[in-house]
Amino acid sequence: MSVFSEKAGNNLEAVRSTKPLIHNITNFVVMNFTANALLAAGASPVMAHAINEVEDMASFAAALVLNIGTLSNEWVESMIRAGKTATGLNTPIILDPVGAGATPLRTQSAKRIIEETGVSIIRGNASEILSLGHQESLTKGVDAMHTVEEAAATAKKLAAELGVTLAITGKTDLVTDGELVFSIEGGDTLMPTVTGTGCAASALVGAFAAVDEDMLSAAATALAFFGLAGEKAARSAKGPGSFMVALIDALYTITPHELRAGARIVEA
Amino acid sequence: MSVFSEKAGNNLEAVRSTKPLIHNITNFVVMNFTANALLAAGASPVMAHAINEVEDMASFAAALVLNIGTLSNEWVESMIRAGKTATGLNTPIILDPVGAGATPLRTQSAKRIIEETGVSIIRGNASEILSLGHQESLTKGVDAMHTVEEAAATAKKLAAELGVTLAITGKTDLVTDGELVFSIEGGDTLMPTVTGTGCAASALVGAFAAVDEDMLSAAATALAFFGLAGEKAARSAKGPGSFMVALIDALYTITPHELRAGARIVEA
Amino acid sequence: MSVFSEKAGNNLEAVRSTKPLIHNITNFVVMNFTANALLAAGASPVMAHAINEVEDMASFAAALVLNIGTLSNEWVESMIRAGKTATGLNTPIILDPVGAGATPLRTQSAKRIIEETGVSIIRGNASEILSLGHQESLTKGVDAMHTVEEAAATAKKLAAELGVTLAITGKTDLVTDGELVFSIEGGDTLMPTVTGTGCAASALVGAFAAVDEDMLSAAATALAFFGLAGEKAARSAKGPGSFMVALIDALYTITPHELRAGARIVEA
Repeated sequence: MSVFSEKAGNNLEAVRSTKPLIHNITNFVVMNFTANALLAAGASPVMAHAINEVEDMASFAAALVLNIGTLSNEWVESMIRAGKTATGLNTPIILDPVGAGATPLRTQSAKRIIEETGVSIIRGNASEILSLGHQESLTKGVDAMHTVEEAAATAKKLAAELGVTLAITGKTDLVTDGELVFSIEGGDTLMPTVTGTGCAASALVGAFAAVDEDMLSAAATALAFFGLAGEKAARSAKGPGSFMVALIDALYTITPHELRAGARIVEA
Repeated sequence: MSVFSEKAGNNLEAVRSTKPLIHNITNFVVMNFTANALLAAGASPVMAHAINEVEDMASFAAALVLNIGTLSNEWVESMIRAGKTATGLNTPIILDPVGAGATPLRTQSAKRIIEETGVSIIRGNASEILSLGHQESLTKGVDAMHTVEEAAATAKKLAAELGVTLAITGKTDLVTDGELVFSIEGGDTLMPTVTGTGCAASALVGAFAAVDEDMLSAAATALAFFGLAGEKAARSAKGPGSFMVALIDALYTITPHELRAGARIVEA
Repeated sequence: MSVFSEKAGNNLEAVRSTKPLIHNITNFVVMNFTANALLAAGASPVMAHAINEVEDMASFAAALVLNIGTLSNEWVESMIRAGKTATGLNTPIILDPVGAGATPLRTQSAKRIIEETGVSIIRGNASEILSLGHQESLTKGVDAMHTVEEAAATAKKLAAELGVTLAITGKTDLVTDGELVFSIEGGDTLMPTVTGTGCAASALVGAFAAVDEDMLSAAATALAFFGLAGEKAARSAKGPGSFMVALIDALYTITPHELRAGARIVEA
């Protein structure tokens, strides 16, 4: 029996009715796809990175999503500035540490954002997440080298250590706040063949966190929603191109009722 | 009976036969979609923003499209530099003031571009356009808070005040040069669910302005073309993802004859 | 009878089994499409441009793809820095000189990259490639003004002069190392109606160069693969939008066996 099923549907309903403004400082590769995923889900995306604008934008956003996919020093400064504004306003901050562990710049930037802003949720693959703790980890590009299974034990400890909710995606997704751990089934093998599916997941976690004060259920229900969309999209896809298109369609057409019935979140 | 029907078809024909080079300095989110919309329509897009290149590029472009969607100070400087070159050559400049009214940086940058370059057409939603005049306006992200109807009265006055042609898009589009006002029907409710449809509209206005000396008819016919493409795309779409794909297909397959028959531009 | 047919299939197999990490420093317009093309083919794309990260990233990449499509001085510095790292490690470097010949900045930047790094393969259209030699050439935006036929004679000489393998794409593609010249048939008239098809071709050349020590056969087989995907995609496409989607699907679904049978590479 799925946990949070009712809440999943309620969160989707709330996103569609309140259209929360999600401020994204994200990478060049996925900006379009991320904005379209948020729009399809019902949220209002805005992308803004200028150092002299991010505080204004963050101040009226319902959630802030920071993604270090094509980072540079200037962008990290903007992320931290926006993050401080969001922190002061108790606005949820979602960090996507793309490629953390792969290069010193990425690992250090992710760690700096965690230290200097009040990150609520970190969404990444296992190797990215592991690189943020003391445990050493090598990342091959943005691909995961560790399975969610390998990461599960460490995740709970790491969430407690970092004082955040962790959302670790892979074949099975894992969400933990350091005390409770939930696993989420869903998605499709085509998911990692499209760039930015992880980044879109992070943005959707942001949209759900904008309408759900409980970061654990926000993250779990957003991932259940995204996983269900992936399953639905895979049914009509002929490859990664048509999958990407069908995924956006699915984020738009899945009803709260469908999500309540299809969410597969269980205590791990 | 539609105004400019003949001209709409002629403009589309002229874009396809002369393939005008459209120089875009636009935002990261929509660059790919904008380039593909221009290519599908028959124009030749180029994206170039480097401060030491924009004058060269603007000097042989048939139209310049400036879009402040993910602006920063450096990019605004490049926009102004390119704009001055275009102004000196009487090349039409289309400004898309994305998010004007939302943050001081956006409003001020849009106003500065208008003051320092010879903008021909401004294409935006009602709240963005209104923020450029004296009337105060709050924008919720990049979404419109004012209806075209609310804006209609102000539009004519504002166009005269700014000395430009205004193209205000929404459920009904509105084009005015400060004397005449035309409304354009078309499009679909899926349009605002895809990021960059407004930006693509601005770019297409640029392509039509490259082949039509009358900015009023250039803007009106381009929006009629885009609206017709939206209607055609919606017929086969299953959501925003497939709509986006079908929209590009429609921009490519709509014939000048179809556009003459389908344009719905009337004096407002 | 096609040359390199067996090798084409073997290269595709090797890309899919080894998933080489392809480091791209490319333009904003095509980043998403390029990453998806590489993923669909089986490679692992990473986009990274920060001056303080590119050496790290280039040091563990299997190929480096440099694309000057939306260049600025800062990005060119990063390209050169990454290029020097790749050169020192004998990692193949593919240069896509987008718009070379169109503006001094582009031509000079492309030439500087060639002079200061050990470029293995240059992939461009005829007018871009010609602009890199002594012969003067005007480019209209990123569109080709010279046919491959015009370029063929010059190509061999130019490849020898520059000491690189040239991959010139157009209606017929041409690959030469200065001694041998091969032509490759394939593709579709819809290809130039989608932005970034050339850039994706360059990235795929990078993926094949990562698994094939012979730059001539790497370039030829990658272009044969891309051309075959274009043909396959065109069969179901209704315009550039659906073509783009089908092209990504085709890069994913074409088997090594299909490629061996479908590659059309002949000595020119």
